[in-house]
Amino acid sequence: MEFLQATYHLDGGPDSMRDLAAAVLLEQTNETPRSVGLRYPFVRNHLTGHAGKPIPTPEGGFLVTLSLPTETASADPAQFLNVLFGNSSLHRNVRLVDFELPDSLKHLFHGPSFGIEGLRVRFGIMERPLTASALKPVGMTPPELASLCRTFAEGGIDIIKDDHFLGDHHFCPFEDRVLCCMEAVNEVVARTGRRSAYVPNLSGTPDQILRQLEWVQKRGVAAVMVAPMLVGLPFFYDLARRWCDVPIIAHPSFSGTSRIEPAALLGKLFRLFGADAVIYVNYGGRFSYPQDKCMAVADALRKRCPPFRCAFPVPAGGMTVDRAEELIETYGRDTILLIGGSLLEAGKDLLSRTKLFTRAVEQSVAALPTS
Amino acid sequence: MEFLQATYHLDGGPDSMRDLAAAVLLEQTNETPRSVGLRYPFVRNHLTGHAGKPIPTPEGGFLVTLSLPTETASADPAQFLNVLFGNSSLHRNVRLVDFELPDSLKHLFHGPSFGIEGLRVRFGIMERPLTASALKPVGMTPPELASLCRTFAEGGIDIIKDDHFLGDHHFCPFEDRVLCCMEAVNEVVARTGRRSAYVPNLSGTPDQILRQLEWVQKRGVAAVMVAPMLVGLPFFYDLARRWCDVPIIAHPSFSGTSRIEPAALLGKLFRLFGADAVIYVNYGGRFSYPQDKCMAVADALRKRCPPFRCAFPVPAGGMTVDRAEELIETYGRDTILLIGGSLLEAGKDLLSRTKLFTRAVEQSVAALPTS
Repeated sequence: MEFLQATYHLDGGPDSMRDLAAAVLLEQTNETPRSVGLRYPFVRNHLTGHAGKPIPTPEGGFLVTLSLPTETASADPAQFLNVLFGNSSLHRNVRLVDFELPDSLKHLFHGPSFGIEGLRVRFGIMERPLTASALKPVGMTPPELASLCRTFAEGGIDIIKDDHFLGDHHFCPFEDRVLCCMEAVNEVVARTGRRSAYVPNLSGTPDQILRQLEWVQKRGVAAVMVAPMLVGLPFFYDLARRWCDVPIIAHPSFSGTSRIEPAALLGKLFRLFGADAVIYVNYGGRFSYPQDKCMAVADALRKRCPPFRCAFPVPAGGMTVDRAEELIETYGRDTILLIGGSLLEAGKDLLSRTKLFTRAVEQSVAALPTS
Repeated sequence: MEFLQATYHLDGGPDSMRDLAAAVLLEQTNETPRSVGLRYPFVRNHLTGHAGKPIPTPEGGFLVTLSLPTETASADPAQFLNVLFGNSSLHRNVRLVDFELPDSLKHLFHGPSFGIEGLRVRFGIMERPLTASALKPVGMTPPELASLCRTFAEGGIDIIKDDHFLGDHHFCPFEDRVLCCMEAVNEVVARTGRRSAYVPNLSGTPDQILRQLEWVQKRGVAAVMVAPMLVGLPFFYDLARRWCDVPIIAHPSFSGTSRIEPAALLGKLFRLFGADAVIYVNYGGRFSYPQDKCMAVADALRKRCPPFRCAFPVPAGGMTVDRAEELIETYGRDTILLIGGSLLEAGKDLLSRTKLFTRAVEQSVAALPTS
């Protein structure tokens, strides 16, 4: 019998560990007093799962791995999350650290539709890291955004994406924005022959997002951005699997990762649910994440794990041009470097700073071992 | 100019507070270096917001209230969450504590379609708290669940709801389960004349849930249960506003409330997005929540806040029959008391323990002041 193996960090002393592990196991299996579950042979034999030995961690607390029944988890993607970290997310002393998907649950997921290879082919860049920047601040008009697009494209940025705050605002309506930005980028591409793409942010209810998606796909958009935790993971799953014909870049907004380990949420779940590239906050930026947690996100996104395609890590959140070389050394080729605000700060020197960025990427990669 | 007022708890010493508050303000307004935002008059004048004075809290850290621009938040319900706690949820030292919706944002929300009054009318119970129990454990067959339904209905339970783990499983398909459970409850109601209702759990992608909803509404279901954080708040919003003709009971699974104050997430957001009743984990149960936080959830759900209907608090998570009186004294009439596992533990005495529960509710309410 196969199990979904999920590892939790439990906060507390050694005396309470066995009870706490048993409580979490109960919560994530059948959430019923043990004596009640035991009355039903099917529940007893198939749906109770079991808890591994609690292992103390250097920073305090314990790690415990639970074997959770795949039969309960397999009904649908929301139910999968329910079994993984439903009620236990309400335990203040429990964090989800990691999970291993058994073969028997793989059919539930599709993973990235394009992944690293598909995105590379689409952009025609097979060897080096991709570069990305963001259109912001929110409040700019479509022509102002288009002008930024033009400069970024002339500076050689591959992926020119909307800031996650760009919605369908009265001061910058979605369709106007997309038309202006696509036209600006396409004009530069036609002139220079260098491929760049504008990537719009989709936001709203499922209906609103599906309408936006249909509209941009008809106009030949190269990729889209969505925040899976804002729109809901089960809808994101459907979007990636059924509706979206282009790669999806996932944004981490609303993901409040302290209760789920970033590598498990952004690295594993976002990939399983269909993200082709995942933006996350990098070490040394505006958010204080340690380097090992950031590397763990990248590792989870790129780990060979058939049948799922690998997804691009997109370290971001206050990156600067002078760190391009270091980031490439750290993350290697299969990375998208996203620098937004630090480029925009250049003001009238935006084009030259953008070129510094894209050249730095081209040069650093020459120093990498051939893949 | 009106603002969305949001209050955050910031962890840190007094020296870092001003910078941290400014960082969160930037993140939740235009997420761009200040010098860049200032270049655009519309951004400068309308979209920068401002931070209040940090106030130290007795348990450490500071509370700071930010005035966030409604113009950015108003585009759609996902964008509203984005502005409220998008990127800042990634700050490990920031928690969303509370928010106040300005009048100019009220048009975005519909709130509960039924609320306390509507649910009371539907169940024909105008004066006393409602009683609820849960069908579990997952793994029972439809006839086994129907048998539980029958006993609960005979015992006088008003709302007989699915456990949140009941999905569309091969061992208990959704449609079979709903038919068996509705039939069992209806048979008892026809015989005794006492109103009870079976409330199915809806789970899956938006498409799956809309199919389930349509199917159960055609068969005259009285209410449904959904976990808003599992399915995604923007979809929940649409479900409540556009698709659902019956009251919705919200389940807290996957809501990991430590990063958003329970009263703000379960009390305010779930209500704004359309929940008619909200299940949350009560003090003294399986989850260690302090009483004041639980009361704050109930207060937020029931606070007069036109044009939004009030929603029922449903304290749960390990409640027992002997606490019914205390819970009613604490929460008053406008409450749904949910007792699941503790009833089921009675085994062959389930009917008599259920009757103890429903009679305790009827008796305690006589002691309450007339509303």
